[in-house]
Amino acid sequence: MFYHNKRLQYYRRPERPDAVYAMKIQELIGGTFGEMTVMMQYLFQGWNCRGPTKYRDMLLDIGTEEIGHIEMLATMIAHLLDKAPATVQEEGASDAVVGAVMGGTSPRDVIMNAAMNPQHAIVSGLGATPSDSVGYPGNGRFIVASGNLLADFRSNLHAESQGRLQAVRLFEMTDDQGVRDTLSFMIARDTMHQNQWLAAIEDLEQSGLETTPVPSSFPLELEKREFAYQFWNNSEGNQSEQGRWAKGPSMDGKGEFEYVANPQPLGPEPHPPQPDPKLHGTGDVAHGQPGNGHSAPPLVERII
Amino acid sequence: MFYHNKRLQYYRRPERPDAVYAMKIQELIGGTFGEMTVMMQYLFQGWNCRGPTKYRDMLLDIGTEEIGHIEMLATMIAHLLDKAPATVQEEGASDAVVGAVMGGTSPRDVIMNAAMNPQHAIVSGLGATPSDSVGYPGNGRFIVASGNLLADFRSNLHAESQGRLQAVRLFEMTDDQGVRDTLSFMIARDTMHQNQWLAAIEDLEQSGLETTPVPSSFPLELEKREFAYQFWNNSEGNQSEQGRWAKGPSMDGKGEFEYVANPQPLGPEPHPPQPDPKLHGTGDVAHGQPGNGHSAPPLVERII
Amino acid sequence: MFYHNKRLQYYRRPERPDAVYAMKIQELIGGTFGEMTVMMQYLFQGWNCRGPTKYRDMLLDIGTEEIGHIEMLATMIAHLLDKAPATVQEEGASDAVVGAVMGGTSPRDVIMNAAMNPQHAIVSGLGATPSDSVGYPGNGRFIVASGNLLADFRSNLHAESQGRLQAVRLFEMTDDQGVRDTLSFMIARDTMHQNQWLAAIEDLEQSGLETTPVPSSFPLELEKREFAYQFWNNSEGNQSEQGRWAKGPSMDGKGEFEYVANPQPLGPEPHPPQPDPKLHGTGDVAHGQPGNGHSAPPLVERII
Amino acid sequence: MFYHNKRLQYYRRPERPDAVYAMKIQELIGGTFGEMTVMMQYLFQGWNCRGPTKYRDMLLDIGTEEIGHIEMLATMIAHLLDKAPATVQEEGASDAVVGAVMGGTSPRDVIMNAAMNPQHAIVSGLGATPSDSVGYPGNGRFIVASGNLLADFRSNLHAESQGRLQAVRLFEMTDDQGVRDTLSFMIARDTMHQNQWLAAIEDLEQSGLETTPVPSSFPLELEKREFAYQFWNNSEGNQSEQGRWAKGPSMDGKGEFEYVANPQPLGPEPHPPQPDPKLHGTGDVAHGQPGNGHSAPPLVERII
Amino acid sequence: MFYHNKRLQYYRRPERPDAVYAMKIQELIGGTFGEMTVMMQYLFQGWNCRGPTKYRDMLLDIGTEEIGHIEMLATMIAHLLDKAPATVQEEGASDAVVGAVMGGTSPRDVIMNAAMNPQHAIVSGLGATPSDSVGYPGNGRFIVASGNLLADFRSNLHAESQGRLQAVRLFEMTDDQGVRDTLSFMIARDTMHQNQWLAAIEDLEQSGLETTPVPSSFPLELEKREFAYQFWNNSEGNQSEQGRWAKGPSMDGKGEFEYVANPQPLGPEPHPPQPDPKLHGTGDVAHGQPGNGHSAPPLVERII
Amino acid sequence: MFYHNKRLQYYRRPERPDAVYAMKIQELIGGTFGEMTVMMQYLFQGWNCRGPTKYRDMLLDIGTEEIGHIEMLATMIAHLLDKAPATVQEEGASDAVVGAVMGGTSPRDVIMNAAMNPQHAIVSGLGATPSDSVGYPGNGRFIVASGNLLADFRSNLHAESQGRLQAVRLFEMTDDQGVRDTLSFMIARDTMHQNQWLAAIEDLEQSGLETTPVPSSFPLELEKREFAYQFWNNSEGNQSEQGRWAKGPSMDGKGEFEYVANPQPLGPEPHPPQPDPKLHGTGDVAHGQPGNGHSAPPLVERII
Repeated sequence: MFYHNKRLQYYRRPERPDAVYAMKIQELIGGTFGEMTVMMQYLFQGWNCRGPTKYRDMLLDIGTEEIGHIEMLATMIAHLLDKAPATVQEEGASDAVVGAVMGGTSPRDVIMNAAMNPQHAIVSGLGATPSDSVGYPGNGRFIVASGNLLADFRSNLHAESQGRLQAVRLFEMTDDQGVRDTLSFMIARDTMHQNQWLAAIEDLEQSGLETTPVPSSFPLELEKREFAYQFWNNSEGNQSEQGRWAKGPSMDGKGEFEYVANPQPLGPEPHPPQPDPKLHGTGDVAHGQPGNGHSAPPLVERII
Repeated sequence: MFYHNKRLQYYRRPERPDAVYAMKIQELIGGTFGEMTVMMQYLFQGWNCRGPTKYRDMLLDIGTEEIGHIEMLATMIAHLLDKAPATVQEEGASDAVVGAVMGGTSPRDVIMNAAMNPQHAIVSGLGATPSDSVGYPGNGRFIVASGNLLADFRSNLHAESQGRLQAVRLFEMTDDQGVRDTLSFMIARDTMHQNQWLAAIEDLEQSGLETTPVPSSFPLELEKREFAYQFWNNSEGNQSEQGRWAKGPSMDGKGEFEYVANPQPLGPEPHPPQPDPKLHGTGDVAHGQPGNGHSAPPLVERII
Repeated sequence: MFYHNKRLQYYRRPERPDAVYAMKIQELIGGTFGEMTVMMQYLFQGWNCRGPTKYRDMLLDIGTEEIGHIEMLATMIAHLLDKAPATVQEEGASDAVVGAVMGGTSPRDVIMNAAMNPQHAIVSGLGATPSDSVGYPGNGRFIVASGNLLADFRSNLHAESQGRLQAVRLFEMTDDQGVRDTLSFMIARDTMHQNQWLAAIEDLEQSGLETTPVPSSFPLELEKREFAYQFWNNSEGNQSEQGRWAKGPSMDGKGEFEYVANPQPLGPEPHPPQPDPKLHGTGDVAHGQPGNGHSAPPLVERII
Repeated sequence: MFYHNKRLQYYRRPERPDAVYAMKIQELIGGTFGEMTVMMQYLFQGWNCRGPTKYRDMLLDIGTEEIGHIEMLATMIAHLLDKAPATVQEEGASDAVVGAVMGGTSPRDVIMNAAMNPQHAIVSGLGATPSDSVGYPGNGRFIVASGNLLADFRSNLHAESQGRLQAVRLFEMTDDQGVRDTLSFMIARDTMHQNQWLAAIEDLEQSGLETTPVPSSFPLELEKREFAYQFWNNSEGNQSEQGRWAKGPSMDGKGEFEYVANPQPLGPEPHPPQPDPKLHGTGDVAHGQPGNGHSAPPLVERII
Repeated sequence: MFYHNKRLQYYRRPERPDAVYAMKIQELIGGTFGEMTVMMQYLFQGWNCRGPTKYRDMLLDIGTEEIGHIEMLATMIAHLLDKAPATVQEEGASDAVVGAVMGGTSPRDVIMNAAMNPQHAIVSGLGATPSDSVGYPGNGRFIVASGNLLADFRSNLHAESQGRLQAVRLFEMTDDQGVRDTLSFMIARDTMHQNQWLAAIEDLEQSGLETTPVPSSFPLELEKREFAYQFWNNSEGNQSEQGRWAKGPSMDGKGEFEYVANPQPLGPEPHPPQPDPKLHGTGDVAHGQPGNGHSAPPLVERII
Repeated sequence: MFYHNKRLQYYRRPERPDAVYAMKIQELIGGTFGEMTVMMQYLFQGWNCRGPTKYRDMLLDIGTEEIGHIEMLATMIAHLLDKAPATVQEEGASDAVVGAVMGGTSPRDVIMNAAMNPQHAIVSGLGATPSDSVGYPGNGRFIVASGNLLADFRSNLHAESQGRLQAVRLFEMTDDQGVRDTLSFMIARDTMHQNQWLAAIEDLEQSGLETTPVPSSFPLELEKREFAYQFWNNSEGNQSEQGRWAKGPSMDGKGEFEYVANPQPLGPEPHPPQPDPKLHGTGDVAHGQPGNGHSAPPLVERII
């Protein structure tokens, strides 16, 4: 069960409204890696965690923290949208733009009005919306929770990496000291969370519960081991041979990387079965070769 | 520019049709971490790679390989759907189910017909569809490409971890030796790809181009460093104190983890600005207390 | 900022696993009116509330409560999926269904395995997912927060009405006494929440801040009042004349209902303007009859 | 079966083109509460109505009217996009913007060209699209039809409240007298429709077919009555105690509101069951402490 | 403006309920080519038609007809869902399946209950929903209306071809004579509509308003004519040389097909520009080759 | 299996950056008819093709070519976004717009910064994204592959018609000679592909494998032939009588077009069955007329 404290985890008010920036920072609320995603991701992982209690507790700690991050950003957007030029000014809107450039209404307001997210005015009444910087709504498929902790901790590390990158880019896109101050707190928390998931991965791997390759509980002899450490060079050029992934011991310590410079297909040319006549697809029957025919499959030659 | 060889990278034909399993294995084509996602993810990352050539080449190698994985799975699904009980049999469909149990039509066919993905019959004519195991279509937002290689390699590691986990689960969900053989190849490739992204991360970090926290080019002094290594215990209970993330040097070597057992809000209670009257939201004016009132913010106490 | 208590608001464990029912009850988590929707809806409304503090506080109270409802349902689904027949049993899967009916494996397991949500096994590892009963993900567009409290309280009343209806239907779809007990708590809370929104509407209307029609701050003389209380009978048959909406004083007390039995269009036949040649749409020019009937295109003047 | 009259229900042509406003007013066509949604919502409710004929007839009347509202808006958008600056002017586009400000091309055109919905040019050739003001497409999940008339009438009331609010906001966002005139008709119809659904709710409740709480056919003794009128104060601060929802008789006349100032969880801490090894999730087994605290897993019996 | 007649365009009632078939036939309502799509597609094309009046009138005729097709299917689904085994029967649900097989409850009901679309019970109360056969909602992006009539008539021909194919497949999937009778009407209308769009294409091409290639108003000399009739053989094997598309005059009568057996790239290897440092992507700077370097682009050789 | 050559199929670099145009041209990558759609569409059709080998080979040829078209566009977008004004310039951002107009920063940059796709900066780091010109992501439902070759070739013809139309419009929207040159290649390929699908349709029809109406394998006597060539005039006005579709032999050569000027419904007024009480929908029971009542269906008259 959850409780709410009215105060924000951290906050400094924007210095001035900026409706276009309000649109952009929506990415951190409803984007693929926004706070709505990570909040739900950590809570679903925590609720479904069947591993040691410390992981479950840790997941619920951070998931609960993230709810408050949405709250901080929603508050910031309300302030950024304050006095947004969302409606027509009385003094003659049809000439607003020319007027704007000549004097009168600010040209900044004209551009803001045209370029802001229209739903910030029409739909939410100058409040945050549960969508990203182009107005695409948050989506449950962004949320990752598999029941395998190493797979999920890696997902969390990826989400916090993309998330901090986006927050930093948004920091660069404004010089409002209030916005930057609040973002500098959130970026610091993302630093912690990247470190936290790296630590959780180390903690989990050292416990022996999961190691590479995920899932480690699948017996390796059931996979085709001869292909488990090969790099296939399917794109022309051999620069990829210079990387760590092309030679030397594999990262899981269970094999040796191998570079396949000239990869060849190992399987046959496929022959999908003839279609069920009741489904009225197109088969080969008109050619007098009904059914599993394709009697003379074209000779398969090497292409390259 | 791309070329195609008619032969499959690897393939063993399923031993027998299984329409319900065909529905399930769609997850590996059009799911969040399906081959359509990773194929596009690696190609978009490669096309937009502005880092050293070896990374670009490597991304295009693996992206090109993954196109062929969709092809293998599409072929498998066509075989799994062969002779699927998609239509009504002549011998009296109205009693098919009862008949099925009593004798006559196979009860397996009755259940298959009811439980298979109906679009496999109606929409695709017993072919694969670009959707997941519940019929939800592949979506461009699943594809991650940020222009920051460390962020993206972590995304790739996460995708291959979730992907191998799903392939292994699907391996456990059948005992068809043809399907298992093909999956054992794909699982081996996922082993390689997990290793590959771990190696690429090591390679990149050792080059100094990127390190933790991502993006490492953002000056750390611009984030609020005092919160960059704190673990906040927002969920009751202190089991999370036992993890690697709660004490000791941080993973980036730049700080020391700290456990905040009793976290308190640092910000004020928010007061969103009064609404623009032209947008007809609800404000506080009827109470004669317009604007920034809310004069006595409630005392903040620890709730739990 | 939020806090979490490890105990659930209310819970009684299901008596037995039921994977198909687990799929169905997902509707209450990720469906249009699921807990993910209403939780976010109330929090976004609260965060953006600029009206009297009691409304803001009330919205945050209930939004915070709803987070815990997702938690209860996620826990229930984990129990319902326990020992779900998600994988193939060793004893000869190829004949499982026939065998199931004859003896051996339970026919219930065979049907469960075929009909359960496959993502409950493949994607989440027998945990809840952020999606509805057909696997469609939760979507930010389900969340309604407009900044107008009467509009939003009506949205909340609608959500709780649809939500309680769905919970009641799910109650009827099981006879598991554990599930029914937990649902009977949630249904009671929905009773409260319907009452709560009705009370909030009364409270708000009596405060004079908002009344019908929403938004009441828009001057009525700016709408075409002569059409503001007419019922148009566009579908054959006059049974609709018998309702409260067809005669008598209007509900807002500002007009009189009128029944238009034989409605006629008031506007002209439209003539969209000829297409811009640079956009290569199809116009009427090839016939040498530009705008057949568009004979007097309105004089176009330079606007600014 | 449906028929179409070429004339519009009502219409006044916009005074002048305005491509950015055309983008904004798309919200009323394809938005969550746009005409596409309510048109389908009323028709689906009508087609599936099993209640008294007057309700079915009324639903089909209004659903049929709403199709014509899409038509009015689509016509308006075609006029608003007439001569939209969708393509490059011959006189030197590379310098268009600077030139625009200095003289030559109108700065209004430059801003319009940059800020209009690009799909209005590229995809629809200066016609309306079935999407909202940020280009997000209409979605079947927006349409609500449950088979329970009181639940659905409340949904309709909510849709018309949000819809009128959005139409009013769009009225404020233009000073084009043609657009305002057409909108003033649509806003009046929304006034009627809010009144209509309030009347329909009264009509239905007085018939005794449905009352609060919806669905009223569910026996109240099957819900946990002791929690059916409690307000839980999950967010710090007691301002919510001042509302109509916190004390006095409940709105359904069947209980008394109660304010729970210090709410406590009633359920246990949850323990999800240990994962199925075949699904390779992470459990607690490596520690030799299976299910720390899951010490007495409930006896599993064969169900069927 | 639209009117509605209560009678259906055509209808024969299903002989018996079939909840699983009700799920399948949803494809014809809310699927990619369902009636919701084509109805809106024809109306949007008609509303935005700026070509000769006969096309506009024809589009509005067929669009209006299609609304009634949704109505027929929605009615059929309500009948197919009548007495659907949506809830638990009183006589001991926990043993339903075993009982079902042994006697008692019908095994058909058990399978129906497990395999039907759960939203048909939970969400719509045994009515049709605006979604397809896997529950995915109708989507505005399915609707095509470009302003170019030849492009759009081809889209309509494609939609009616896919639509009739799906209706025929659904005909084969039932032996209910009522359903088949209604479908045989709809299939006949699809025959008309395929013919209609072929006729409209001929009519339009003969008018000279549009011909191949669409849009024909674009001056051909502005495209690279030397590549406008070449077939590129990018997939191994030359069987594609045997088709009409590989030699002889082109279908537009303006060129000659040419078969490029061994296609070669015409462009350079791409070098995306170095990233903006403010966006913290990964560039090549660590290698001492900042900016537009990549000084020694790898030799490009022919791969195949 | 696929291979990649580092060189592009064709390419000329844009003359200068243009961030707003970069947003627009995304339509050709991730839009409904973008290269992601057609690439996957042709490959899925090819992989599932069970007809004569030449069709399968041809589909795989063109599908493989289209992968390279995404590559060309992704490269173009990277160049168009080079030096995009994505971040705040140092010299005083708070006054950037006013400053921009007065002197200092270019006004073009200010408008570009406000109107560009924000995800091009925040999410992809100045690279292409898998989405359309309004940021809506590519979607698997855009991809059409039915197993019936004539239905699918018509889908392909439609896609290439819409696609060439969009490319031509984008050509008109820029005067950058680099962009226009690359587009003139892609437009030429679209000319070929329209011709190719027309040729494939002729080839297939002449082979006798499929003809109009699709699917031609369905016995015509199973459809209601009396309605298979009627045009229904459901929209007022008879201009539609003037078209090729209204009289004369039908295009399939199997019937004669007939114009139904005054169409009447052929079916009854529908009576959906009374609702299942367990699902708590609203029925007619309160009126004491349960079930199939509605005794006196209203007389049906012609409405318009």
